[in-house]
Amino acid sequence: MTSLSAVPAYAAPTAKAPLERTTIARREVGEHDVLIDIKYAGICHSDIHQAREGWGEAIFPMVPGHEIAGVISEVGSAVTKYEVGDRVGVGCFVDSCRECEYCLKGQEQNCVKGSTGTYNDTDKHGAPTYGGYSTHLVIDEGYAVRIPEGLALDVAAPLLCAGITTYSPLRHWNVGPGSKVAVVGLGGLGHMGVKIAHAMGAEVTVLSQSLRKQADGERLGADHYYATSDPETFEKLAGSFDVILSTVSAVLPIDTYLGLLKVNGAFVNVGAPEEPVSVNMFSLIAGRKTLAGSNIGGIAETQEMLDFCAEHGFGAEIEVIDADQINEAYERVIASDVRYRFVIDTATI
Amino acid sequence: MTSLSAVPAYAAPTAKAPLERTTIARREVGEHDVLIDIKYAGICHSDIHQAREGWGEAIFPMVPGHEIAGVISEVGSAVTKYEVGDRVGVGCFVDSCRECEYCLKGQEQNCVKGSTGTYNDTDKHGAPTYGGYSTHLVIDEGYAVRIPEGLALDVAAPLLCAGITTYSPLRHWNVGPGSKVAVVGLGGLGHMGVKIAHAMGAEVTVLSQSLRKQADGERLGADHYYATSDPETFEKLAGSFDVILSTVSAVLPIDTYLGLLKVNGAFVNVGAPEEPVSVNMFSLIAGRKTLAGSNIGGIAETQEMLDFCAEHGFGAEIEVIDADQINEAYERVIASDVRYRFVIDTATI
Repeated sequence: MTSLSAVPAYAAPTAKAPLERTTIARREVGEHDVLIDIKYAGICHSDIHQAREGWGEAIFPMVPGHEIAGVISEVGSAVTKYEVGDRVGVGCFVDSCRECEYCLKGQEQNCVKGSTGTYNDTDKHGAPTYGGYSTHLVIDEGYAVRIPEGLALDVAAPLLCAGITTYSPLRHWNVGPGSKVAVVGLGGLGHMGVKIAHAMGAEVTVLSQSLRKQADGERLGADHYYATSDPETFEKLAGSFDVILSTVSAVLPIDTYLGLLKVNGAFVNVGAPEEPVSVNMFSLIAGRKTLAGSNIGGIAETQEMLDFCAEHGFGAEIEVIDADQINEAYERVIASDVRYRFVIDTATI
Repeated sequence: MTSLSAVPAYAAPTAKAPLERTTIARREVGEHDVLIDIKYAGICHSDIHQAREGWGEAIFPMVPGHEIAGVISEVGSAVTKYEVGDRVGVGCFVDSCRECEYCLKGQEQNCVKGSTGTYNDTDKHGAPTYGGYSTHLVIDEGYAVRIPEGLALDVAAPLLCAGITTYSPLRHWNVGPGSKVAVVGLGGLGHMGVKIAHAMGAEVTVLSQSLRKQADGERLGADHYYATSDPETFEKLAGSFDVILSTVSAVLPIDTYLGLLKVNGAFVNVGAPEEPVSVNMFSLIAGRKTLAGSNIGGIAETQEMLDFCAEHGFGAEIEVIDADQINEAYERVIASDVRYRFVIDTATI
């Protein structure tokens, strides 16, 4: 039986310090809980933002990780959804109020009381939450999703954040056969955006700073690839797209990008520029255009996304690393030097 | 028979001069044309922007007016849609390419070659277009709409711009019973937004700078009325609305207004702030919110809007003026001193 009082993990002791090996306590397996033996945990850029307090004051020690894939090794007495041996994933939240309008609609990410973050948060008992850079996790069965057969756990892990973050808006804005979609940036989010939009049947264009990753983009499903450093790109592609999915955190010249949309088109930001952007309302009024944002998805839609990826036979493009490479991987993520997601093999923790 | 070589009109001779009585030439009635005896023409704030070159260089002399209601007095030999005596309206455009994707979809306002403005534009023969501050207009039958029985011509005129500009986005964002809609500003556009949203079955809230027009707002169909000068308004109404229709041209604190939206809500601008606005992408990402613009509608939707208004028994709230009051009316529009639309009785030109 697993000891939950000393679970191996990698944690940032403070915002200034590198992550290091430690142990954490997980709660005992309650009647509605499952114990997950974590196998893989993806490294999301937001792990770094939070571990370094780039998004404000954080809770330390911090065990990041919200792209979690593993196998259930114990179930509580009242668990009905899962059995020991089931392969499951956990994403950005581990609980919510379960009573509000959004929880009842399966949009737990929008819980009016705030969903409980997988890490850097406190649970309903006031205990800190710890994420996936760890060997075990205890979670209410309602907040885990099933990883379908045929989807390997390592390539499935990043789907729990990067996958759902790109899938949800593409679905919401009705991308399908006949749609013309541009994906801005070919990183962790962008490469999933390309794969998913392509699998949905859209004609996909990558808009990247340079043509450096063009071969990759085309292999992942892009029909076209343009450099945004070339001003001709914006002339040539004017009025072309139904949806532009921006996965970058840079502050873009929004009016210029809005010019690439067709009438009724939507520019959807899933990256997170820290500075406000400037937009001329006339850029939105002419042609009834939309500037929007989007953020992960609920449990039901996350399951739908995993099933969709399994059906289409793809996960993320990953580089599997050992736990002692996490700090180095963080530097490489910041330098955009990863194709396209680092995934920690938690057996090495 | 009407002489089309000297049609009475009110025109701005230059951007600096007041409007004055003059005569203009209209084209002969072609085989697909109808001749309209104009009865009423609304005064839209954009008439003033254009007549005073607030939106850039303009064509003079300028006869403004794109909220036109009248009666057909002559039809061309190939006209099939109308007969002499039919009551019709003309809005913001009088022609388009008729071949592009948008024209073929009935979204002539988005014509890729640019629709031909009712005034301050040139037609396909290179002749200047003159608007509704005039006694007669010749137009292709495809660009006029029928004013349903039961809708008086004077209150119908402003529907051709203010009506469709508010109707189209409310329809596009699926306003209906159960929707919570806020209308920002209770002017020419705003008062139509309130009437139409109310008639669509929505719960309507007016957000105005003060409570000065509260009684009017409630009479027009608002269920609630709040002053935006009171900071408590923004606390109290946080997370309340599916759609916010902003009809003001002031630059608003957009992030604050986005806080009033429910998850998946849309802030839609039909006013036209001349300065860019600043928006924090996080305000859009959390709760998947939309910032959008919208601009008039096509011929088919304009007809649908007129039919909707007639079915629900309302037009605009108007003050009918004589033509020699146009310049004074302009000053009052600028001072927001009109409830809620000036309409020129063209018999006085």
